[in-house]
Amino acid sequence: MKEVVAGVDIGGTNTKIGFVDAQGAILAEGGLPTADYELAEHFVTALDSKIREMMTGHKDLKIIGIGIGAPNANFNKGTIELATNLNWKGIVPLVEMTERQTGLKARITNDANAAALGEMIFGAAKGVKDFIILTLGTGLGSGIVIDGEVVCGHTGFAGELGHMIMVEGGRECGCGRRGCLETYASATGLVRTVLELLSDSREESVLRDMKSSEITSRMVSEAAAAGDDIAVEALDRTAHMIALGIANSVIFSSPEKIFLFGGLAQAGAAIIEPVRKYADELVQPIFRGTFTVMPSGLPEARAAILGASALIWKDAN
Amino acid sequence: MKEVVAGVDIGGTNTKIGFVDAQGAILAEGGLPTADYELAEHFVTALDSKIREMMTGHKDLKIIGIGIGAPNANFNKGTIELATNLNWKGIVPLVEMTERQTGLKARITNDANAAALGEMIFGAAKGVKDFIILTLGTGLGSGIVIDGEVVCGHTGFAGELGHMIMVEGGRECGCGRRGCLETYASATGLVRTVLELLSDSREESVLRDMKSSEITSRMVSEAAAAGDDIAVEALDRTAHMIALGIANSVIFSSPEKIFLFGGLAQAGAAIIEPVRKYADELVQPIFRGTFTVMPSGLPEARAAILGASALIWKDAN
Repeated sequence: MKEVVAGVDIGGTNTKIGFVDAQGAILAEGGLPTADYELAEHFVTALDSKIREMMTGHKDLKIIGIGIGAPNANFNKGTIELATNLNWKGIVPLVEMTERQTGLKARITNDANAAALGEMIFGAAKGVKDFIILTLGTGLGSGIVIDGEVVCGHTGFAGELGHMIMVEGGRECGCGRRGCLETYASATGLVRTVLELLSDSREESVLRDMKSSEITSRMVSEAAAAGDDIAVEALDRTAHMIALGIANSVIFSSPEKIFLFGGLAQAGAAIIEPVRKYADELVQPIFRGTFTVMPSGLPEARAAILGASALIWKDAN
Repeated sequence: MKEVVAGVDIGGTNTKIGFVDAQGAILAEGGLPTADYELAEHFVTALDSKIREMMTGHKDLKIIGIGIGAPNANFNKGTIELATNLNWKGIVPLVEMTERQTGLKARITNDANAAALGEMIFGAAKGVKDFIILTLGTGLGSGIVIDGEVVCGHTGFAGELGHMIMVEGGRECGCGRRGCLETYASATGLVRTVLELLSDSREESVLRDMKSSEITSRMVSEAAAAGDDIAVEALDRTAHMIALGIANSVIFSSPEKIFLFGGLAQAGAAIIEPVRKYADELVQPIFRGTFTVMPSGLPEARAAILGASALIWKDAN
C-alpha cells in the first residue's frame, strides 16, 4: 500500500482534489462544484463521496489524511471564517466536519500558507528554515515561515503582508483602508499603476487604446516587452513596491529566501530582476546580501493541491 | 544553595551585573566600566573577576549561567557584530569567550530581544505566546515573540521594526536610508516632529524658547500636559506613527499583546491612549479587537538585567 494525502483546493466555483504521495507526485485527480452546495455539511458529504469514488480506481493507495486550502481559513481553529466568495457564511468548522465524515485526520489553511507549505515540502524551500512566499495575483497573499513553522499568530490569520500600509492616504483597498501594499504590488495594482501613468503623462501607449476594465497584467507585460514606455514604467514601479514590501518584511523576520508566486511572478525576469535590484537598495543595510528573491519552485497549476497536501505530509515525515 | 543567573547589561560606557533568581529578584548588583577595556578579552576577564568578587558575599548562591544583553548582539552566533558604540570592532565571539573564561553557560542577545524575554519570564507577558515589545527610546527597538520564541531569523538580526520604511523619501535615518519608523516613533522622532510643527505653523509654543538641541521628549510631554498646542499635536502625531507601525506589525505576526517600553512609553496614558485609538483605526479590519497595547510590566531601571538573565532562565525552567 502506498500512502497518499488527499490535497483539497477549495475555490469559490470549483474544488479540486488530488492524491499526493510523499514525493509530491499527484496520482489521481478529481473535483466537485463548490458553488453547488449551499450548506457546508452537504459539501463535506459530497467531498467524502468524491474521494471514495476516486479511491475505487486505486486499491493500492492508502489515504493518511486530508489537507485543505481555502480562502479565509484559520489553521488554529480549523475553520473557514467570513469568506465572501463562498456560499457558507459565518464560521464553518470544516476540519471537524471533515474528520467526522471521513474518519481521517484533516487540516486546513489559507491559500498563501498552503503555498508556503508546498514550497517547503515539495518546492524550492526544502531545508530552508526562514522564508516568505508572496503570491502576486489579484491581491498579494503571503505565507511566512520562521524556524520551519508557518506563522499563524494569536488569531490564526497572521501573514497578511498585502495589507501593510505603504502610502498613508494612498489607493483604496478592498479591506476598507487606503495605501495597502496589494493596491500597488499585485496584478491589479500593476493595472492601477498603468492608469495612473496614463492620467499623469502625455506619453503614447498601446494601452491607451484599451478599455481600462480590460487591461490585464499580461497585456502590460507584453506591451513592456514590446518597448511601450508606459508599460515599462508601470512594471518598474510595481517591482519597486514589491521590493519595498520585501524590505519591510526582511527587517521583521530576516528570511533567507523570498519566493514570488502567481500570475504576476510569471512575468519572470522582467519582474524578478528589478525586484531584486530594488530590494537590495531599499533594505536596511545590515540585511543587504542576506536574502535571495527567487521564483517559486512549484508549478502554478498544481501548487494549490500540493500545498494543501503538505499540511498533512509536513507532520507525517 | 539558591540558583541564580548573572544578568549582564553591556552598555557603551558601563556594564551592569545582577544576580537574578528564578522569581526575578535581584539578589546582588555590581558593575564595571565597559569603555575602559580596549579588547573584549580583557573585558571578559574583568567580568569574570567581578562576578567572582560578587559571589564572595553570597556563599548561598549558585550561578547556573550568564545572560548578556548588548548592542548589535547576534543570538544565533553568540557574537557582538560591528557595534558602533563599543570599543570592540568587527565580530566578537563574546559567548564563546565568556564560556571559556567562566566555565558557565552563556547566551547573548540584543537589548530589545532581552526586553522581550524579560517581559515573558518576569513581566506582563507571562503565558503570552505571541507578542511584540517596542522600546521607545532614542530609536525604536523591537523584540518579536511568536509561539513562545523570540524571532531571530536567518541572520540573528530579525526584529528591526524601527527600520520599517513608513514614508518613502521621508526623514533621514541613522541607518543611511529615509522614512524609517524610528525617525518618527521614538523620543528623537517626537522632538523632530516638534521642530517640523514649529517650522510649519505660526502657533505660539513654549518650545520656541528652547534651543532645538536641548528639547527632550520629557519637555514635550510636560508642555503637552500644560496645554501647549504644538506639544499636544507632536505627541498625537507620534502616537499615530507608533500605531501605524503596530498596524503593519499585527498583519505580519498577529500578536495578542503589544508592549511599549522605554523613555517615551513613560509618558503613560498621554501616549498609550492615543496609540490604542489609532492602532484600532489603522489596523486591517480582521485584526480589530484581537490585540491589546499596554505598558511593559518591567521596571525600567531593572529591565535590562532581568531580560539578560531571562536568556538563561527561559531554558532552565
